[in-house]
Amino acid sequence: MTDNLRIDGDRLWRSLIDLAKIGGTEKGGVCRLALTDLDRQARDLFVAWCKQAGCAIAVDRMGNIFARRPGRDDSLAPVITGSHIDTQPTGGKFDGAYGVMAGLEVIRSLNAANYQTLRPIEVVVWTNEEGSRFAPAMTASGVFGGVFELDYALARKDIDGVTLGEALKTIGYAGDTPCGGRKVEACFEAHIEQGPILEAEGKTIGVVTGAQGQRWYEITLTGQEAHAGPTPMPRRRDALVGAARVIDEVNRIGFRHAPNACATVGMIQCHPNSRNTIPGRVFFTVDFRNPDDAVLARMDRELREFAIRTAAELKLELKLEQIWAFGATAFDRRLVEGVRKAAAKAGHGHRDIVSGAGHDSVYIARVAPTAMIFVPCKDGISHNEVEDATPEHIAAGAQVLLQAMVEAADRR
Amino acid sequence: MTDNLRIDGDRLWRSLIDLAKIGGTEKGGVCRLALTDLDRQARDLFVAWCKQAGCAIAVDRMGNIFARRPGRDDSLAPVITGSHIDTQPTGGKFDGAYGVMAGLEVIRSLNAANYQTLRPIEVVVWTNEEGSRFAPAMTASGVFGGVFELDYALARKDIDGVTLGEALKTIGYAGDTPCGGRKVEACFEAHIEQGPILEAEGKTIGVVTGAQGQRWYEITLTGQEAHAGPTPMPRRRDALVGAARVIDEVNRIGFRHAPNACATVGMIQCHPNSRNTIPGRVFFTVDFRNPDDAVLARMDRELREFAIRTAAELKLELKLEQIWAFGATAFDRRLVEGVRKAAAKAGHGHRDIVSGAGHDSVYIARVAPTAMIFVPCKDGISHNEVEDATPEHIAAGAQVLLQAMVEAADRR
Repeated sequence: MTDNLRIDGDRLWRSLIDLAKIGGTEKGGVCRLALTDLDRQARDLFVAWCKQAGCAIAVDRMGNIFARRPGRDDSLAPVITGSHIDTQPTGGKFDGAYGVMAGLEVIRSLNAANYQTLRPIEVVVWTNEEGSRFAPAMTASGVFGGVFELDYALARKDIDGVTLGEALKTIGYAGDTPCGGRKVEACFEAHIEQGPILEAEGKTIGVVTGAQGQRWYEITLTGQEAHAGPTPMPRRRDALVGAARVIDEVNRIGFRHAPNACATVGMIQCHPNSRNTIPGRVFFTVDFRNPDDAVLARMDRELREFAIRTAAELKLELKLEQIWAFGATAFDRRLVEGVRKAAAKAGHGHRDIVSGAGHDSVYIARVAPTAMIFVPCKDGISHNEVEDATPEHIAAGAQVLLQAMVEAADRR
Repeated sequence: MTDNLRIDGDRLWRSLIDLAKIGGTEKGGVCRLALTDLDRQARDLFVAWCKQAGCAIAVDRMGNIFARRPGRDDSLAPVITGSHIDTQPTGGKFDGAYGVMAGLEVIRSLNAANYQTLRPIEVVVWTNEEGSRFAPAMTASGVFGGVFELDYALARKDIDGVTLGEALKTIGYAGDTPCGGRKVEACFEAHIEQGPILEAEGKTIGVVTGAQGQRWYEITLTGQEAHAGPTPMPRRRDALVGAARVIDEVNRIGFRHAPNACATVGMIQCHPNSRNTIPGRVFFTVDFRNPDDAVLARMDRELREFAIRTAAELKLELKLEQIWAFGATAFDRRLVEGVRKAAAKAGHGHRDIVSGAGHDSVYIARVAPTAMIFVPCKDGISHNEVEDATPEHIAAGAQVLLQAMVEAADRR
C-alpha cells in the first residue's frame, strides 16, 4: 500500500519559492539571519502551513518548532524530520529550507493519501543552524543532542551584543517545552549536497553514511601599529603579514590532506585598518574538516606549529583557540539502509556519500537513530546567492524521504 | 639681534598637551579624524590661541586655516609654516599637531621679544592630511600645491558617503578665500621623524632634504562564495587565499629593495566574512615608498606581475588600480641649508634625512621653496597611541624653526 504514496513535486517547489521570498535578494538568493524579523516571518509562514495541514505546534525553549501529525498509536516515539530556515548572509533558497519543506510535503502527501502511520510524525525547524549571527553553528540541535547546555546556548551573543535568548523573545519564539530529553524513534533530514560530487557523477540521491569531523579556531596576531612610511621593513611587527602567511598555510594544509580535507579562513578583521598604518592586530577564523579524526588531529598540529613559528619570526604575539569541534559521525545503519532501498525502489541513481558540512542531524545522531538524504545542487555551490537545484532532484529527494519515513513510522 | 630670540619650551609643551585632550584616548593617544566635531573643537582652540597672539585669521575653500602676523612690509610674500591637526584612528599627540603648535610658538616668541620680521609670517592648519577619513591623504595641501582640482577634493567621500565639502560645512570651516594661487616666499614644517633613525644615532635635529616617492594601490580579488565544508580544495576560488599571497609578496618586495623601500598592506575587507563560507571577494590596499622613482617603478612591476600570476593560478578576477602617486621630492637647497645652519648654531646634533612619510610640505614644495625639520620620536613609533617625544627635542625643533623662519622672513 505504501508503494502508492507519492509526493507532489509542484506543490513542494512552490512552497520553496514562496518561502524564499522572505529575505529574497536581488541576485536570487536569500539573506535571512537567525532570529531576525525575516526569520520570524518565515517561521510564521511555516506554522500557518502546518496548521492548515492539521498539525499541532509546539515550540521548545531554544525556539525549535515541532509540527506533529498524530500516529495510530500516538503514545509511541515519533519519527522526525527537519532542518533550518535561517541562512548565511549570502545564502540560497535551498540550504536548510529544502529539508523543512520536504518534511511538510511528506505530511501533505500523507494527508492527501489519507494514510495514517503507526507512529506520529514531526517536522522540525531547528534554530540558528548557520552560526552566522550566533556562533557556534547548530546551536539548538546541539542543545537537543546534549552537546550544549541550554543556558550556554541562550547566552550566545551576536556582533551587537544581543543574546540568542533575547532575540528569541523579541520575535516571539521563546517556547516553554523542554529542549530534548524525549525519545525519538528515528530522525531524517533531506538537504542539498552543497558539494559537486552527485552532479559530477550524474547521481540523483546521496545516501549519507555520516559526517566529517570539524574544528573551528579563532586566531589573533598582535604586533605593533606604526607609520607605513618611515618604519624600515626589518623593524616592523606587521600582524597582517603574519595572518597572510597563516591563511596561505591553512589552504596548503587542506591540499596536503587531499582528497577529503577542507581548510578555510572565512573571516578576517584588521586593526586599525588604515592604508598608511602598519596593522597592529589581526583576528581571523579557521575551519578544518575531515571524515577521519586522526587526520583532523594532524591538521591541528600543523596549524599550531606553523602559527607559532610564524609569530616568532615576525615578533608577533599569538592567541590561538579551538572554539568548537565535533568528531566524525556515523549515521544509523538501519536508517541509512532504508534510504538506500527507497532510492533504489524509486529508480534513482544513488551513491553513498559523507557530508562535508555540519548539519543539525549530526547532533541529533547523538540521541536518536539518524540518517540524511542528499540531492545535487548546481555546480556544487552553496552559501552563495546563486545556489540552485532542479525541481526533479528536489522532488526525488522528498519521495525518498517519504518512503524512508513511512517505513520507520510503521515499525513497532 | 635674532641670536637672542628664544622659544618657550614649557609653553609649547603645555599647548601640545592641551590640544591632545581633544580626542584624547585612554592609552594616551589621540583619535581626531578630519572634519569631525573633535576636529572642529581643535580648530576652534587653535583659532582662539592665534587671535590671542594678535593674528588675523583666514579660512580658504578647502578649510585650511591661515593665522597671519604682519611684517614690516606687509605687501611682501609671507613665510609660512604649518602642518595638520587631524589624526589617524590610532594617532598620537605629536604627528601634525607639533608642526602647528611649533608655528604658534614662533609667533608667541616673536611677540614676547617684540620682534617684527620684514615679511609677514603665517601659521597654517592643512585640512585632511592623514587620509584616514577621506582618501587620498594631503588633500588640501594638494589643492594648494596644484596637484588636485578643488572640485575633485571637495567631492572625496568618507566610508559613510559624506563628502569632504559637506563635512567642511557641517563643522563651519568652509571658508571663502581661494585655495592657493598666491606667492609664498618660503614654507617650513616641523614634524616628528616617525621613524627610528635620529633616535638610533642620538641626533636631535633631522635636516630634511626631501621626501620619498609614494604609490597607493587598491586591489580587489573576486572568486566565488561557497560552503566551506563540502567544497573540495581543487574546486575553490578563494579570494582570501589570493589576497594572502599578494600581501605576503608586498612585504617581500619591501625587503627585496632594502634598505630604503617600504611596502605595506594596511587595510583589508573580506566578503561575506563568514566563518564557514569561502571568501568570494577581498579588497585591500598597498602603499609603496622609495626615495628613487626608478626603484618605485620596479616595485610596481613586481606587484603587478605577481598579482596577475596569483589571480590566474587561483582562477580569480583581479582589479588592480594605482589610485595615487607622487614622485620623490627634493626640498629647496637654500632653505635646507638655513635649517642646517640653525641646528648647528643652536648646538644640536643633526643629520640630513629623507622623509619616509608624505607631508603637506611635499605638495607645497611644488609651488613654493620648502624645507622640513624633524625631531626624534620614541622607538620611531607613530600612527600609534603610544607615539611619544621628549620636551627637550620638541623645544629644540621649534628653536631651529624660529631661527630658520626669521632668517627667511627678514630677507628681501
